[in-house]
Amino acid sequence: MRTAICERLGIEFPLFAFSHCRDVVAAVTNAGGFGVLGAIAYSPDQLDAELTWIDERVGGRPYGVDVLVPGKVDASALDQRAHLMDFIPGRHRDFVTHLLSKYGVGAAAQPMTAVADEFGRRVTAAGATGLIDVALKHRIGLIASALGPPPPEMVARARKAGVPVAALVGTVEHACRQVAAGADLIVAQGTEAGGHTGEISTMVLVPQVVDAVAPVPVLAAGGIASGRQMAAAMALGADGVWCGSVWLTTEEAETPPAVKRKFLAASSLDTVRSRSRTGKPARQLRSAWTDEWDSSQESPGPLGMPLQLLVAEGAMARIAAAAEKGEPGAVDLVNYYVGQVVGQLDQVKPARHVVYDLVSEFGEAVERLKRLSG
Amino acid sequence: MRTAICERLGIEFPLFAFSHCRDVVAAVTNAGGFGVLGAIAYSPDQLDAELTWIDERVGGRPYGVDVLVPGKVDASALDQRAHLMDFIPGRHRDFVTHLLSKYGVGAAAQPMTAVADEFGRRVTAAGATGLIDVALKHRIGLIASALGPPPPEMVARARKAGVPVAALVGTVEHACRQVAAGADLIVAQGTEAGGHTGEISTMVLVPQVVDAVAPVPVLAAGGIASGRQMAAAMALGADGVWCGSVWLTTEEAETPPAVKRKFLAASSLDTVRSRSRTGKPARQLRSAWTDEWDSSQESPGPLGMPLQLLVAEGAMARIAAAAEKGEPGAVDLVNYYVGQVVGQLDQVKPARHVVYDLVSEFGEAVERLKRLSG
Repeated sequence: MRTAICERLGIEFPLFAFSHCRDVVAAVTNAGGFGVLGAIAYSPDQLDAELTWIDERVGGRPYGVDVLVPGKVDASALDQRAHLMDFIPGRHRDFVTHLLSKYGVGAAAQPMTAVADEFGRRVTAAGATGLIDVALKHRIGLIASALGPPPPEMVARARKAGVPVAALVGTVEHACRQVAAGADLIVAQGTEAGGHTGEISTMVLVPQVVDAVAPVPVLAAGGIASGRQMAAAMALGADGVWCGSVWLTTEEAETPPAVKRKFLAASSLDTVRSRSRTGKPARQLRSAWTDEWDSSQESPGPLGMPLQLLVAEGAMARIAAAAEKGEPGAVDLVNYYVGQVVGQLDQVKPARHVVYDLVSEFGEAVERLKRLSG
Repeated sequence: MRTAICERLGIEFPLFAFSHCRDVVAAVTNAGGFGVLGAIAYSPDQLDAELTWIDERVGGRPYGVDVLVPGKVDASALDQRAHLMDFIPGRHRDFVTHLLSKYGVGAAAQPMTAVADEFGRRVTAAGATGLIDVALKHRIGLIASALGPPPPEMVARARKAGVPVAALVGTVEHACRQVAAGADLIVAQGTEAGGHTGEISTMVLVPQVVDAVAPVPVLAAGGIASGRQMAAAMALGADGVWCGSVWLTTEEAETPPAVKRKFLAASSLDTVRSRSRTGKPARQLRSAWTDEWDSSQESPGPLGMPLQLLVAEGAMARIAAAAEKGEPGAVDLVNYYVGQVVGQLDQVKPARHVVYDLVSEFGEAVERLKRLSG
């Protein structure tokens, strides 16, 4: 399996693995795919340490880094003189307190103001640039930008370093805007994907994006966790696939055990696109958290990004810890971003086995198509 | 391209065309695919006339009939002694009057009580059975049941006549239930499809259904309007594809001209899953009709099926007529069922050209996959 993107990045198989877990990134890269580390969880210093860890394990094989640069953020996040926590309205704080009490989790520790500022501002263009500077000091093969078009400084710095820039999109219009802004590779992500996602399905979106941005290569994302799905994505015209959810139930994944158990038991009906974790629509496991924010009468409705992210992360850290102790209310509330493929994930495997199984089933799917078409 | 379903039904290419238009059914069947006539719009006598018309044109080539049998209907529809129109609350009638006045369409003619009863009851098991009896007098090769599991009488009559039964599903659970009820062929329909549809995308749904019901053959539906999308569906494990939206902009289609123009101009973001036309979630072009029912403050919310169908059809016939005269309010309101592929539909072609283009692009997509996989 050789596509243009395999040649360009020097990989055996055009399978991109998005993960917040360095172990998954290294395992997929070492298995012949291309690991991409989600950098949002890290400060610049932490990211530096993670990338050094990966560098030491992949023997020069290529991997990438993904930052989150939303096109629009809550204006308060741009005011460097103010503290982000000060912009969270009282009724949102009260609702979180009410939820934690109702589900028996106890009062949430408010995140410390300085930590919140640093974390919240990481999802702004300025914040992302700090992470990119760190990333470019390592031997990375790709920088990806989720949500907004890559900021001009990001493209310029990546170009200078000879590193291609990828951008995630959910519409044809955004794909064209990303290419105009300098993206070298487009990830067309369908609504079935986990995390921030649009409304158009992978089946419909990918061919339209491929035609609109040609000859820029396109990876398909959303709904891809098996070799048949990868073959389908390539039949749609994609040059490769970008998978996220499938790694969350691997042995290496950082997924909290209580969430992993919920993922393994879930069906494809158990996800929801909700603004309750970040302020923007993000597909995640449906739980009491999403139900309460999206449908309960007391809900003040989610804030914008990054304020809702601060509200949710502060509470969710506490909830996840309580869920690990088996507290039933916390188990009801706990969730995480995941796509509709969660219904296919029913066993825990090492990440490299996921790669091998995907490659092998991909071959079978292509053989079947050859046979059928005579 | 020969799959098991091609052998069983005696067709050249496993492309199923769902249409309410006999011209499309005959054209696709004559081009080597398999036309399926949606029977819901017809009384038993009308259906008889339509099928006779098709029989005279397809020279014995196979085609099918689709009836709508919801698993659950509003109980009032089952009471044969009452008039259905009597169950429509005053505030729903008032809201329709308000909408038509607001958009300058004038008062809607209320459908005649007897017509409404006949139409509304066609979507019950008893109503569907009447249509099936007519269909089985013709040389049909397939009976399809949308929404609910096929009623036992339907399966028994079709079996006796040697006609396979197909069933549309949106979840794995429903697929298993349909097979248990006697379905010979499953149509796994993703959320991106037009008309009544679930929440799971085609990319995610199809492989799960294929695995769950094997060796029963599965057709993929939703998001398929080109050869690349057909190749993708087959890569997912489908035995063929079931397309609906792509015929709506053909020369033969019965689509009202004002709606056809809106379809040709629409993007894939312009559809919505709404209960405002039938009482069940159905994907359709977003218009002032769906916006008003789903989001306006005055909206009483849609009724169940079939009552909302009566409310909507009565008004929509009037709206479509006014839209044809170019009345701007009516053009804002008018819509029709269509899938997210509407964004790909930008020219009017004869239905047989759609078939030829699909077959030809399918071949190219398989060739590309062969080349890439070496």
